[in-house]
Amino acid sequence: MPTPFRTMRRVEFHHTDAAGIVHFSQFFLYMEEVEHEFLRSRGLSVMMRDAEGVLSWPRVAASCEYRSTVKFEDVLDVELEISRLGEKSVTFSFRFAHQGRAIATGQVTTVCCRIESDGAPRSIAIPGEIREKLTASS
Amino acid sequence: MPTPFRTMRRVEFHHTDAAGIVHFSQFFLYMEEVEHEFLRSRGLSVMMRDAEGVLSWPRVAASCEYRSTVKFEDVLDVELEISRLGEKSVTFSFRFAHQGRAIATGQVTTVCCRIESDGAPRSIAIPGEIREKLTASS
Amino acid sequence: MPTPFRTMRRVEFHHTDAAGIVHFSQFFLYMEEVEHEFLRSRGLSVMMRDAEGVLSWPRVAASCEYRSTVKFEDVLDVELEISRLGEKSVTFSFRFAHQGRAIATGQVTTVCCRIESDGAPRSIAIPGEIREKLTASS
Amino acid sequence: MPTPFRTMRRVEFHHTDAAGIVHFSQFFLYMEEVEHEFLRSRGLSVMMRDAEGVLSWPRVAASCEYRSTVKFEDVLDVELEISRLGEKSVTFSFRFAHQGRAIATGQVTTVCCRIESDGAPRSIAIPGEIREKLTASS
Repeated sequence: MPTPFRTMRRVEFHHTDAAGIVHFSQFFLYMEEVEHEFLRSRGLSVMMRDAEGVLSWPRVAASCEYRSTVKFEDVLDVELEISRLGEKSVTFSFRFAHQGRAIATGQVTTVCCRIESDGAPRSIAIPGEIREKLTASS
Repeated sequence: MPTPFRTMRRVEFHHTDAAGIVHFSQFFLYMEEVEHEFLRSRGLSVMMRDAEGVLSWPRVAASCEYRSTVKFEDVLDVELEISRLGEKSVTFSFRFAHQGRAIATGQVTTVCCRIESDGAPRSIAIPGEIREKLTASS
Repeated sequence: MPTPFRTMRRVEFHHTDAAGIVHFSQFFLYMEEVEHEFLRSRGLSVMMRDAEGVLSWPRVAASCEYRSTVKFEDVLDVELEISRLGEKSVTFSFRFAHQGRAIATGQVTTVCCRIESDGAPRSIAIPGEIREKLTASS
Repeated sequence: MPTPFRTMRRVEFHHTDAAGIVHFSQFFLYMEEVEHEFLRSRGLSVMMRDAEGVLSWPRVAASCEYRSTVKFEDVLDVELEISRLGEKSVTFSFRFAHQGRAIATGQVTTVCCRIESDGAPRSIAIPGEIREKLTASS
């Protein structure tokens, strides 16, 4: 994955708080949206069905560091990279900028799971076909 | 239900928006929370299991009229009443006040449904035991 | 405004709830986003500054009727119309559909306000220039 | 702060997602709510006014690690500790459990700021009176 996946998000009014800026928790929603947009761009989904049943990717860690702020109607440029691809897990890294100004960076680690018949997730090695799509050079 | 069910909600920071007040959409979350708190107080739940399977209460209508505003850390007094009890549906009415000042009123209509084996909800007459609990004089 | 304003919204994972469908409150966020997208398309904003100060549009009523459900990654077609343009207020009506199937309809009424020096909103007649932009035939 | 600050949060329906569990982003809202509840218990607020003006505490980092899941109507036991008290910043650590089972741990770092006349925050040394309240043995 030599080049990052790039997209944008516009700050909606309901993303802001009484400090007049985007609420810190909203960046985790942006990260989820952008991760899923990336997966779709590779023909994948965070909830998908294969021959053996349902695959899902629960989150085991999420973090964000805040450098500057954005306001209502600002447009964020977002970059996603796979910063670590383990046997069973993927860590996505995110960079948020507004007009060239660094706003925030974040990381989310998800684990490939098969959903058992009782609804519980069980971690599995990432299937080869999914691994290929994740790492294809865009 | 001669007397309304009464509870309170404190305005959290993440309920506010860049206008410095509680975002209008948040009142629908308060209404859901208070409806569920009322149901628990009657030994019910919005998702419950009986001998025949799972009962749920999807919403078919929701509305809110806004009279005044509240800010971070204000405490809202909330009243819930059953304003209409149909064969298959319940309409809850809500009154929000802050220190005696009217803030908002709202209504939510839900329909009693049995979840079919394929996951789809099918509306049913409200079972007698549930109807009794809903209408008991607190 | 002879033809409705049309846009789309994709269902994000965080819009869903444990019933597996979009949470009813999310439709109010879609309505806000689409209203603001419409305003931008007319060169307006819900928070704008003119020669006399700041204009804002607090909501006085919001409602939604739910007909059917949508799930993660479904794409909603959304139509906005101005269903009532008063001296001081605007009512926007919304229609949500998924692949031709009616999902929900909603209404939001906002009032044109000037923000006073103490931060309080005071309702005013909608300025002529704004009224013209709102009612221009797209 | 020898003993942690303890409180609880009930899982509301709107905290859940289509996987049937609390959405990962919701833990950041719980952390904010519990931090503010702790501050109130010490006679402080995240937005407070002193003789010199307005003090606020923007977040510079937030993270969460997820160990297990919770569902609608589960009650979370939450513990907050000050894990680092710097000259200008405070790091709060959180532990979430359900019936003795570890659910998640998290950290939030906030910086003491005075809001300048133009609305911009400027970091300052934490005032002595606030530092004392933060570190008082409950």
